[in-house]
Amino acid sequence: MKGKLYGIGVGPGNPDLMTLRAKELLDKSAVIAYPVKKLGEEGVALDIIKQRVDISGKEIVELLFSMNPDDEVRKKCRADAMEKVCGLLDEGKDIAMVTLGDVAVYSTYMYIDRDIRARGYETEVVPGIPSFCHGAALARLPLMIGEESFAVVSLAKRNNENAEKVLDSVDNLVIMKAFASIPAIVGMLNERKIPLSNATVMSNVGMPDEYIGPLDPEREYGYFTTVLIKKKV
Amino acid sequence: MKGKLYGIGVGPGNPDLMTLRAKELLDKSAVIAYPVKKLGEEGVALDIIKQRVDISGKEIVELLFSMNPDDEVRKKCRADAMEKVCGLLDEGKDIAMVTLGDVAVYSTYMYIDRDIRARGYETEVVPGIPSFCHGAALARLPLMIGEESFAVVSLAKRNNENAEKVLDSVDNLVIMKAFASIPAIVGMLNERKIPLSNATVMSNVGMPDEYIGPLDPEREYGYFTTVLIKKKV
Repeated sequence: MKGKLYGIGVGPGNPDLMTLRAKELLDKSAVIAYPVKKLGEEGVALDIIKQRVDISGKEIVELLFSMNPDDEVRKKCRADAMEKVCGLLDEGKDIAMVTLGDVAVYSTYMYIDRDIRARGYETEVVPGIPSFCHGAALARLPLMIGEESFAVVSLAKRNNENAEKVLDSVDNLVIMKAFASIPAIVGMLNERKIPLSNATVMSNVGMPDEYIGPLDPEREYGYFTTVLIKKKV
Repeated sequence: MKGKLYGIGVGPGNPDLMTLRAKELLDKSAVIAYPVKKLGEEGVALDIIKQRVDISGKEIVELLFSMNPDDEVRKKCRADAMEKVCGLLDEGKDIAMVTLGDVAVYSTYMYIDRDIRARGYETEVVPGIPSFCHGAALARLPLMIGEESFAVVSLAKRNNENAEKVLDSVDNLVIMKAFASIPAIVGMLNERKIPLSNATVMSNVGMPDEYIGPLDPEREYGYFTTVLIKKKV
């Protein structure tokens, strides 16, 4: 009997926001795998599950997915990771591969899932709470209501023009990775005469310097900063 | 000691997709409240939690939020519901108010939360898995990846023009309540030369006639139909 691969979204950080299914599968899987960009990096998703799952006695496998600009290096890295996963499945071990937030939101897990299934193994994907749903819950704001539209963009690569285009076509916009782009976001809002008070910042949620409140351009924000803009409030 | 109101997203339907926090709060709350549009209507969210939470011995409260076109009827209804909630909190009872999916996604719970807090009571909001994350997990498709943008619209009121505007500005679009709008969606895709195979239908998930697969214009779809359109696949 070959093992099964479980792709598990562990939610936004608070371990109580894992699903019952995630906990059940993590409890029973022989192997917990987590992706890293550098070897030896502690996985954030692993930190979360440790608080609710006894991982002693389980095999913990770090999978390196390099961000090296060289295509060949990335491909080799990925092939090695796939070999490792298949080897464990061939030994009959179930693998729980953990992802921060939801598996379908800015994660490459689905590609791993496709490759593993193409090789004839069984998989299951377990959705997790996306960080923007957690942020909205803490800010007590609907992401959308009635007939409103809602969008999510990432400003990791500071693609401001794209964010502006999306902002112009929807009622509510979540901007992820907004850390370095607060002045640009203030500019976008001013240009459109959207009051700054219509923008809510959710920054470093669950950390000592957590901030959830109106966008204050004078404030410093942490690395994990998301902004929710609502045209109508 | 006054009771506390918990606004709980119970996820998309599969009871194992409730969070640990949701289960914990549902187990301990004296009252389970659920909103209905007509009195005597069985709440979908209640059906879900019953499968994992022992509700015997708990007070089950149906809250009527009428959709009557008459403003006064709706206001009166809402005021009655609020009185009921406050009365229970005054008796020191904790109330778990359950919502299908996530509390911030097309739900009016946040307005109840705001009103209850304005009256001086404590509340907590617990996010749930939105249906579109569950659909993506079942279809094994990322909602967005890398630098892609993502949006959600509802076609409940067949506001096709708005959906087209959003489609033109994002990389990936989820259309909720797409049941009666399949021909319109096919038209939108054809007009933009987006292949129909780039659209994935997630229909009546978890029901006997569940369908998750490519958009087939000849097929009949159930009431709970969501379409995920990806411009790049």
